[in-house]
Amino acid sequence: MIFSDRLRVVQARKDSLLCVGLDVDPQKIPSYLRRSRTGVFDFISGIVEATYDLVCAYKPNLAFFEAMGSEGWDLLRRTVALIPRNIITIGDGKRGDIGNTGERYAAALFDDLKFDSVTVNPYMGRDSVEPFLTRPGKGVFLLALTSNAGSADFQRAKVGGRPLYERVVKVSQTWGAGPSASLRPGIGYVVGATHPAELKRVRTLAPNAPLLIPGIGSQGGDLEASVRAGVTKFGDLAVINASRSILYASSGRDFAKAARTEAKRLREAMEKVRGRT
Amino acid sequence: MIFSDRLRVVQARKDSLLCVGLDVDPQKIPSYLRRSRTGVFDFISGIVEATYDLVCAYKPNLAFFEAMGSEGWDLLRRTVALIPRNIITIGDGKRGDIGNTGERYAAALFDDLKFDSVTVNPYMGRDSVEPFLTRPGKGVFLLALTSNAGSADFQRAKVGGRPLYERVVKVSQTWGAGPSASLRPGIGYVVGATHPAELKRVRTLAPNAPLLIPGIGSQGGDLEASVRAGVTKFGDLAVINASRSILYASSGRDFAKAARTEAKRLREAMEKVRGRT
Repeated sequence: MIFSDRLRVVQARKDSLLCVGLDVDPQKIPSYLRRSRTGVFDFISGIVEATYDLVCAYKPNLAFFEAMGSEGWDLLRRTVALIPRNIITIGDGKRGDIGNTGERYAAALFDDLKFDSVTVNPYMGRDSVEPFLTRPGKGVFLLALTSNAGSADFQRAKVGGRPLYERVVKVSQTWGAGPSASLRPGIGYVVGATHPAELKRVRTLAPNAPLLIPGIGSQGGDLEASVRAGVTKFGDLAVINASRSILYASSGRDFAKAARTEAKRLREAMEKVRGRT
Repeated sequence: MIFSDRLRVVQARKDSLLCVGLDVDPQKIPSYLRRSRTGVFDFISGIVEATYDLVCAYKPNLAFFEAMGSEGWDLLRRTVALIPRNIITIGDGKRGDIGNTGERYAAALFDDLKFDSVTVNPYMGRDSVEPFLTRPGKGVFLLALTSNAGSADFQRAKVGGRPLYERVVKVSQTWGAGPSASLRPGIGYVVGATHPAELKRVRTLAPNAPLLIPGIGSQGGDLEASVRAGVTKFGDLAVINASRSILYASSGRDFAKAARTEAKRLREAMEKVRGRT
């Protein structure tokens, strides 16, 4: 099954667009867990157990695991392994490099760590993205317009009268196309919830692409506009991510319960908008 | 000491612009080492021992280590640890993400793995690069015009009449500037040896910046033009990288000797051009 079909099925079955970003900072987990050798893993398990029926995806943020050293890489593997198979995993590492190196990143993320999909940086162009498009059923979310202030520096630079991120979306849709529909690669895009008008524009340019939408919660993005602009007529394909507002909803022993309450609130807020869309 | 001064000192003392890229592929190392549990580490040690007096820098390519799983991360740490302190290390991971995540990447690469410098992708803009500019003495090589064919897709897109990579170079020179010269961050640029004319242009735009120049050897870049365009009047600051042509110069038991011969040949070819520059 191609990636976007799989995502559509998961979202329909779970009735959810919510993705929980696993930006796991050992300094921010509850203090009683900080004292334990298995504390970080217990924290992640607690979050996943408390939220798995409410989400369509989990997005481990590779930077946070890498900052923990070799143990972090092992923890990342164990994190992917504990996520139920019927939920999409997104390896958020924003990689991208020349062909033979890109292939090694794809091997690390898809073959070794077993992610269903990954985020990829488009700056190095087609041959840096294509190594991620060769594995049937796996998906790629290409950075288009990110949620941060720095997105204005280059992503919005005008190229032929239109912003660069639009060119990224347009040009990349022809990449890695296999000869048959079953080999069609899964290219989606990252567009921040902090840019609702541009989100609408990307949805017009790529009507059937999965969109990964970070930036609600701590970053202040617009949830309602994200749902409206992100969903498609033929299914959802908008994956709306919240990280810190769920993970650190409480810093006490009730962290999992508080995470569930916040995840539930976000999912219901999305469903409410969807009902009206 | 700021990064560019440190690089200048190392290059003067070693009389070398050569950087050896450690793109270590377990499938490509000599077969007798492939059978050994410590084979990959022995291979890296052999390469470093055979070349350390000929180079100014080593550039471990993170993708190759990540593809080896948690053991790869540990191997990466041991690789950085075995490189003599008076040679520059470049962590080639091409990271870049929003502020709080970028800070985790910087912690992983600078604080945990102890790299002297890293490669960073500029697509996400200023606030994604600045976390790498806060550590005194550490350096950043921002991707400008990469050596691959895909560099034409977006890096050469015309923005206000000039290619995007020129804007990246111009704009980024104002980033992360501390209040005093001793805090001045070390921003350098990656420009492929496959683009000699553009290399000259970047040197004009950033007369005192370190330039990391990949693409000679297997990728067919122009060594002579790279040296001519890359070196500055006030010292060198052009770091010219070769990976595969050195690492895999021989697939037999003489791999280290063959690597040394090729490294020596490249360094001498560079010195010859430098002597005439």
